[in-house]
Amino acid sequence: MSPNEASTSLIMIFGATGDLAKRKLYPSLYHLFRKGKLAKQFAIIGTARSPWTHEQFRENVKDSVLTSIGTNDQIDDFVSHFYYQPHDVTDTNSYIKLRELAAELDSKYSLNGNRIFYLAMAPEFFGTIADHLKADGLTDTLGFKRLVIEKPFGHDLESAESLNAQIRKSFAEEEIYRIDHYLGKAMVQNIEVIRFANAFFEPLWNNRYISNIQITSSEKLGVEERARYYEKSGALRDMVQNHMLQMVALLAMEPPIRLTTDEIRSEKVKVFRALRPIEGEEVDEYFVRGQYGQGTINADEVVSYRDELNVNPQSNTETFVAGKVMIDNFRWAGVPFYIRTGKRMTTKSTKIVIQFKDIPMNLYNRNEQLNPNLLVIHIQPEEGITLHLNAKKSGQNMQTNPVKLNFSNDGTNGINTPEAYEKLLYDCLQGDATNFTHWDEVALSWRFVDKISEVWEHQTQSQFPNYSAGTMGPKEAEQLVQKDGYFWWNITDLDVENC
Amino acid sequence: MSPNEASTSLIMIFGATGDLAKRKLYPSLYHLFRKGKLAKQFAIIGTARSPWTHEQFRENVKDSVLTSIGTNDQIDDFVSHFYYQPHDVTDTNSYIKLRELAAELDSKYSLNGNRIFYLAMAPEFFGTIADHLKADGLTDTLGFKRLVIEKPFGHDLESAESLNAQIRKSFAEEEIYRIDHYLGKAMVQNIEVIRFANAFFEPLWNNRYISNIQITSSEKLGVEERARYYEKSGALRDMVQNHMLQMVALLAMEPPIRLTTDEIRSEKVKVFRALRPIEGEEVDEYFVRGQYGQGTINADEVVSYRDELNVNPQSNTETFVAGKVMIDNFRWAGVPFYIRTGKRMTTKSTKIVIQFKDIPMNLYNRNEQLNPNLLVIHIQPEEGITLHLNAKKSGQNMQTNPVKLNFSNDGTNGINTPEAYEKLLYDCLQGDATNFTHWDEVALSWRFVDKISEVWEHQTQSQFPNYSAGTMGPKEAEQLVQKDGYFWWNITDLDVENC
Repeated sequence: MSPNEASTSLIMIFGATGDLAKRKLYPSLYHLFRKGKLAKQFAIIGTARSPWTHEQFRENVKDSVLTSIGTNDQIDDFVSHFYYQPHDVTDTNSYIKLRELAAELDSKYSLNGNRIFYLAMAPEFFGTIADHLKADGLTDTLGFKRLVIEKPFGHDLESAESLNAQIRKSFAEEEIYRIDHYLGKAMVQNIEVIRFANAFFEPLWNNRYISNIQITSSEKLGVEERARYYEKSGALRDMVQNHMLQMVALLAMEPPIRLTTDEIRSEKVKVFRALRPIEGEEVDEYFVRGQYGQGTINADEVVSYRDELNVNPQSNTETFVAGKVMIDNFRWAGVPFYIRTGKRMTTKSTKIVIQFKDIPMNLYNRNEQLNPNLLVIHIQPEEGITLHLNAKKSGQNMQTNPVKLNFSNDGTNGINTPEAYEKLLYDCLQGDATNFTHWDEVALSWRFVDKISEVWEHQTQSQFPNYSAGTMGPKEAEQLVQKDGYFWWNITDLDVENC
Repeated sequence: MSPNEASTSLIMIFGATGDLAKRKLYPSLYHLFRKGKLAKQFAIIGTARSPWTHEQFRENVKDSVLTSIGTNDQIDDFVSHFYYQPHDVTDTNSYIKLRELAAELDSKYSLNGNRIFYLAMAPEFFGTIADHLKADGLTDTLGFKRLVIEKPFGHDLESAESLNAQIRKSFAEEEIYRIDHYLGKAMVQNIEVIRFANAFFEPLWNNRYISNIQITSSEKLGVEERARYYEKSGALRDMVQNHMLQMVALLAMEPPIRLTTDEIRSEKVKVFRALRPIEGEEVDEYFVRGQYGQGTINADEVVSYRDELNVNPQSNTETFVAGKVMIDNFRWAGVPFYIRTGKRMTTKSTKIVIQFKDIPMNLYNRNEQLNPNLLVIHIQPEEGITLHLNAKKSGQNMQTNPVKLNFSNDGTNGINTPEAYEKLLYDCLQGDATNFTHWDEVALSWRFVDKISEVWEHQTQSQFPNYSAGTMGPKEAEQLVQKDGYFWWNITDLDVENC
């Protein structure tokens, strides 16, 4: 086995005909295969309701790879590892057939009984599938067994606890890989490296030097085909409970003792434990919700959320959330972490802006504010780091000007970042759960978020829609930051320049 | 008078037919003129021994502008302000004629008696000229009078004191503008701005976070036509006493109370006072000298220093100096400032490398050293700032890689930096002496340097030449840094990337 090669394994994908599998999983597996990062022995079983044959499945995988990547070198070799089994998730007979196929492939490919169960399907089936996997003997294997679960992990703390209790009957906590695909993104993984591999940042990384941190994850798209799920979820559950709070945790955590899964998770959990709970009347002070009305995106008129397909015309679901998260510990006391995320915003972008405090005294221009120093971590679509400083630009006068030090992860290196799913699949094959969320994180973040959604559910006087498609959200989101004396940095102004 | 317009003034240039005047002063004055930064009323008198006419002088100025800049738009208007007076610096009659011409132009251009005397000539005449300017009534004027003096200001502390005493008979300290053209360079001026206009650096700018600072000013050229001067000077007096120590002072100074000439100079002087004196046997421990032998520059064979025109074939003059400068104060105790400068080195470059201490613990690769963080200030020929960090590059593994955040002063801004002389001339016209060296700085830096040259003059066993042309100096310069556990960063590896 080459040093980069993942463990040999049988991967069972539940929801093999679905969108996630097609758009992410097959292209990611193909990438790993082409890079020699999959073990020579591997097999993949796709299952779903459709009565496909192995051949049909393989043609579908081929299509999805070609569509996604544009080439399909060695594709026949790759898809020869793919098998299909029509499946009914509630039917024991289905699982028995699956077990037989698994045993056959285990022997054919010498897979040592290693099994990954990837649930790429609607969450209401997670518990049922986990139960059957155990009851029908699929987890009864000599090798490792791992369960990969897509979000959402529950709808609130209570449902998450009940789901967790159910799957824990079949899998131990360390066998459960809860996907948060943000944790697979190159620049999210870089947060930790920037902080802990550089002498430069850690001394400044606290409330003495940082005034506030702003995390924006904006989408241009509307709800698209996800309305049925989204109507029940909304931006708070869909984005804040997982991705946004995970980024907060990575930014705020103490340096771990070592870079092991347990030590890193333990530090992240400590951040979640230090989150100031926001409840009752405080919710309106700390959180703002929005729902898009009609507006213009890329010069096209788009409809309001309430006019989208499968959306209740009186829907009170939020498509935008802005919030102020406080971490009440020694390092962060007094430093707001502002988060905002939404659909139908001006631009598609995920950026973290770390704003440093003003210098104690402005020697340069006593009448004007100097620009504060900013460290910007560009998560997507561009990847990079920029540092915004003041310098004297060319010319005679002594005025300072903002200048930007750029590092673009796309530019100089010319390496295409592997997709988040590719990384996470590889991690799971390797048994590295660092970039997956532990139950404790899930529970604590639901606890935080539940207090907010409870208040919102009981507020009747919603003024939705309260922002136009193509804008950065409702004016209350601006006010949230302004009342602390700050403003949201215009993320399109902060773009990294390619070097 | 427009806000950027300098004071009206008569500028007398002594040494008007010389190299400095042609290559730097006329093109700089022309730039200021074209930018509207010279007052409408100005006049320039050139003096030198040659019996030129006004017309000849103007043709020469035209030539020098065209040669240097490549265009000569509005040149006739510009040169109409130029007048020539043949001059013998020791002859009172010459000064009387000069006084008459000055009076005439003062009246013709309404110059309010403002006079700048620019001594662009060999230093042995500085004292004589200053004496005559007073004795023969040229400084007897209703406006301001300012004396601009080129380096070298003395040959050692004693000669500098005697020169200073002499010119102080005719000019007050605040009327004396001692040029150090490094202080006119955009990125040297930026040292102060980087430090004091950014919250980011000052907290790290001390011996807790900085391990060492390296200042390299390397030339590719040999001694060229300056051998007669250089033989008596050498690199220590020619570069270290002024430019190198000035950069040390700007890097090391405490934040001034305000950005006035006096406050800044006062802080710089404090640095000079804190320099650890290096004397006697310590000199060999802290300083290394070199002299180039033959070698290859740009694929051309070049001769050794001792084979250069007008150089003594047994010359012991150093063409290279490397030194370790310690600043014994609270901020810098224990942080070496390594300096090196020389002729016939690998590349022409002036760069400051600030190396930060290693992080307390390497989480990433326990077997390998992480790259230390570097802040590099690129003084010339390229201008910019780079910050060298560790990040996780694209790909699956958790290895860190050095990445470089770039700001290029040439790139994005597309503004050509004004030449140092242009800035300094303008400052002098404005009466701003901040970027000129005060006598206290001159005296303290000579005191520091004299102790070293005294030892070197009494060491007979020189091993010159001890480095080949085209290299970065003698191996002892490497050892100087290595014995502290560091190494000279390869400055060509550190180049800024244009964004």
